[in-house]
Amino acid sequence: MIVCKFGGTSVASAEQIKKVANIVKSNPDRKIVAVSAPGKRYSEDIKVTDLLIDLANSALNNGDVAGKLANVVNRYKDITDELGLDQTICDVIAKDLQERVNSDKSNKVLFIDNLKASGEDNNAKLIAAYFNSIGMKAKYVSPKDGLVVNDLPERTMALPEAYENLKDLGKGDEIVVFPGFFGYTKSGTLRTFDRGGSDITGSILAAAVKADLYENFTDVDCVFSANPTVVNDPVGITELTYREMRELSYSGFSVFHDEALMPVYRLGIPVTIKNTNNPSAPGTKIVPTRPLNGRPVTGISADSGFSILYVSKYLMNREIGFGRKLLQIIEEEHISYEHTPSGLDDISVIIRSNQLTPEAEDRIIKRVKDELHADDVHFRHGFTLIVIVGEGMRNNTGLAARATSAISRTGANIEMINQGSSEVSLVFGVMQHSENQILRALYEEFFAPITV
Amino acid sequence: MIVCKFGGTSVASAEQIKKVANIVKSNPDRKIVAVSAPGKRYSEDIKVTDLLIDLANSALNNGDVAGKLANVVNRYKDITDELGLDQTICDVIAKDLQERVNSDKSNKVLFIDNLKASGEDNNAKLIAAYFNSIGMKAKYVSPKDGLVVNDLPERTMALPEAYENLKDLGKGDEIVVFPGFFGYTKSGTLRTFDRGGSDITGSILAAAVKADLYENFTDVDCVFSANPTVVNDPVGITELTYREMRELSYSGFSVFHDEALMPVYRLGIPVTIKNTNNPSAPGTKIVPTRPLNGRPVTGISADSGFSILYVSKYLMNREIGFGRKLLQIIEEEHISYEHTPSGLDDISVIIRSNQLTPEAEDRIIKRVKDELHADDVHFRHGFTLIVIVGEGMRNNTGLAARATSAISRTGANIEMINQGSSEVSLVFGVMQHSENQILRALYEEFFAPITV
Repeated sequence: MIVCKFGGTSVASAEQIKKVANIVKSNPDRKIVAVSAPGKRYSEDIKVTDLLIDLANSALNNGDVAGKLANVVNRYKDITDELGLDQTICDVIAKDLQERVNSDKSNKVLFIDNLKASGEDNNAKLIAAYFNSIGMKAKYVSPKDGLVVNDLPERTMALPEAYENLKDLGKGDEIVVFPGFFGYTKSGTLRTFDRGGSDITGSILAAAVKADLYENFTDVDCVFSANPTVVNDPVGITELTYREMRELSYSGFSVFHDEALMPVYRLGIPVTIKNTNNPSAPGTKIVPTRPLNGRPVTGISADSGFSILYVSKYLMNREIGFGRKLLQIIEEEHISYEHTPSGLDDISVIIRSNQLTPEAEDRIIKRVKDELHADDVHFRHGFTLIVIVGEGMRNNTGLAARATSAISRTGANIEMINQGSSEVSLVFGVMQHSENQILRALYEEFFAPITV
Repeated sequence: MIVCKFGGTSVASAEQIKKVANIVKSNPDRKIVAVSAPGKRYSEDIKVTDLLIDLANSALNNGDVAGKLANVVNRYKDITDELGLDQTICDVIAKDLQERVNSDKSNKVLFIDNLKASGEDNNAKLIAAYFNSIGMKAKYVSPKDGLVVNDLPERTMALPEAYENLKDLGKGDEIVVFPGFFGYTKSGTLRTFDRGGSDITGSILAAAVKADLYENFTDVDCVFSANPTVVNDPVGITELTYREMRELSYSGFSVFHDEALMPVYRLGIPVTIKNTNNPSAPGTKIVPTRPLNGRPVTGISADSGFSILYVSKYLMNREIGFGRKLLQIIEEEHISYEHTPSGLDDISVIIRSNQLTPEAEDRIIKRVKDELHADDVHFRHGFTLIVIVGEGMRNNTGLAARATSAISRTGANIEMINQGSSEVSLVFGVMQHSENQILRALYEEFFAPITV
């Protein structure tokens, strides 16, 4: 069985939904379809979700509810008209929206969530109705039927019983159309997945039914081996492992939110990223393991906005607990870190700069001086992390030499190098202003023929 | 003022002590002389300290005390006879030893310490007597006069008041001869420095008098840029910074115990390592800062016997506190670590293998699995760390490329790379069996002309 998820642009219009129907129809294994709310049809368009947020705020502030509700219904009406559906589904949607607008407003966050989630929920009803209208046996299934999530105040996550509840989904004759983005608590409160949205729903469903494949349809042909806005026409990645995808998850590779794939990762279910507008393109497949092809490097990512906390102390490496205490001070500021390269008497902590404030830096410096008696403590800013990733890098003699030589040819200085024992990634810290130049040099070294 | 310290081989015989006198005499700034106990005169010789341990054990176990005491006195007598000193000093030494043998044996450790320390103590008396006999005005000063140390059970360290007590040492006409290796608690108990011995005493005295220089006389001409048992005729290091010395302190560079130089380091007092048998050789000078010469690399050290604890977990880098908790588990096993290279979802902890037992490894693996819910946890053994060190490496574009290229030319795989933001060192983890080959390749790259 295949679980497919269609993102916002894939279900933004009648034309797009017809493509979805063709894709689903073309493979009888596609039994479960998770859908987003209608997204943008063109770059200046407004997503249904944004219309819904606007509606929710109007309802909370006694604004123009009727007009804004009509805006939302009209978006669906445009779609149903063009799909040749009758008025029934739009009436259902209008009634549903009115009920949500009239619902309890004591918790504003939950009230807004409830309206936002209607985007996916009503789109699923519409798409199921369309499938049936063209002879594809389909049914809308509500997350109420099994997708149980935890209560506030924790971040929304599916509870273990959700997987048990949903395990027989798609086993009947009908194609299941399931709205993404939300679930219900045991007491029936709707809660949305704040990160990863519909991707998470598809991933949960694929894990619940132990799918053979989770297909994620979006509007790009594949994941690229380097940021196409920096590197001219980069090679597409046809297959990469979960681990490679994670290591590449710095900027330029944000196809999935990190957490969206957790449910399928746990079961080793492969995931494909495919293009609704070009379904015959092979796309990119994410798998637990893969055979190595000739190329050691799968992709190169780069992300700026990093700072380095530098700490030195004579005889640091003799002091059991020094590193742990340093990390504890950072943890107590609720700051996460990326890497901690070290010498014998110094350690650097690489931190995303957006987590720092001048006050937090001062507090950290003061604590490290007072509590750890460091000789020198200071922050430096303006760094980029460049990560070279590939399962084929394991045991590839000379790869670090090729990478460092390529960087040195640009004239840039390497501020930090970090290669873990996994050897699936090689991380360089460089000054931000050299980022694009280095990314191009590395791409040329590992992907393009070098023209001297 | 210069504080000089002479090690065991430098004061092992009359011939050697004459060299010491000549060295001290040749520079009137040499006002304080810290001395060790007589060391080996030839490779099969027994050090006085070992004779004293043997004597102490005999005294504790009702063995042959008189014979073993005579052995010790005879070592001094050989020296005094050849130096032309009369019987007085040997009588003083014999009486002193007898008193120590007769002293309280309730704490065996302190009893043995007291006898061991007599080696330095009596040698200082002898050397002061010799200096005076040849017209060099000198006086023996006991650590009782100011070198106060802490009480049991902590490891012996000089108390802050020791520096105050000793600050006027050497300001008189006489050359001060001061025994290394021990001090006294406030209540008058003798305690020895268990690590770094006489080097620590010299360093404390140099810091107390705010010396211009601390000269450490031993039996080598200099510190070498690489281990001379692996690299043929390596270049000697004429000058290096404290930081370079520390980074090189893995095997092959163990001239000082790490902690011995702490007192002089704090005050930025330069230290020279010189050869008693070749005092005109320039030796190696350790300084707070130094001008850069043409060569970016100062030295290359290599040490085997490292293990890697590898931990991976999907989404590890999203989890604030993961690294800290991992290091805490290791700390609770009283294990220190060297480096922690990391990827996004994995972290490796480099540990000296001699700290690990199969039981400790099992406990760590179990805790990391149970408490941190890691996906994979395992140990790997048999690694060497190779460290390239040099103040000139800072901002030296292309240095990492040269180093990694040199390693890859040997055909060896690089398991780990760690370059901190300090850029004074570059650390490689490699398999132990490639160690010597890589050390030679790196030496050739950075020190010797490459002959292709």
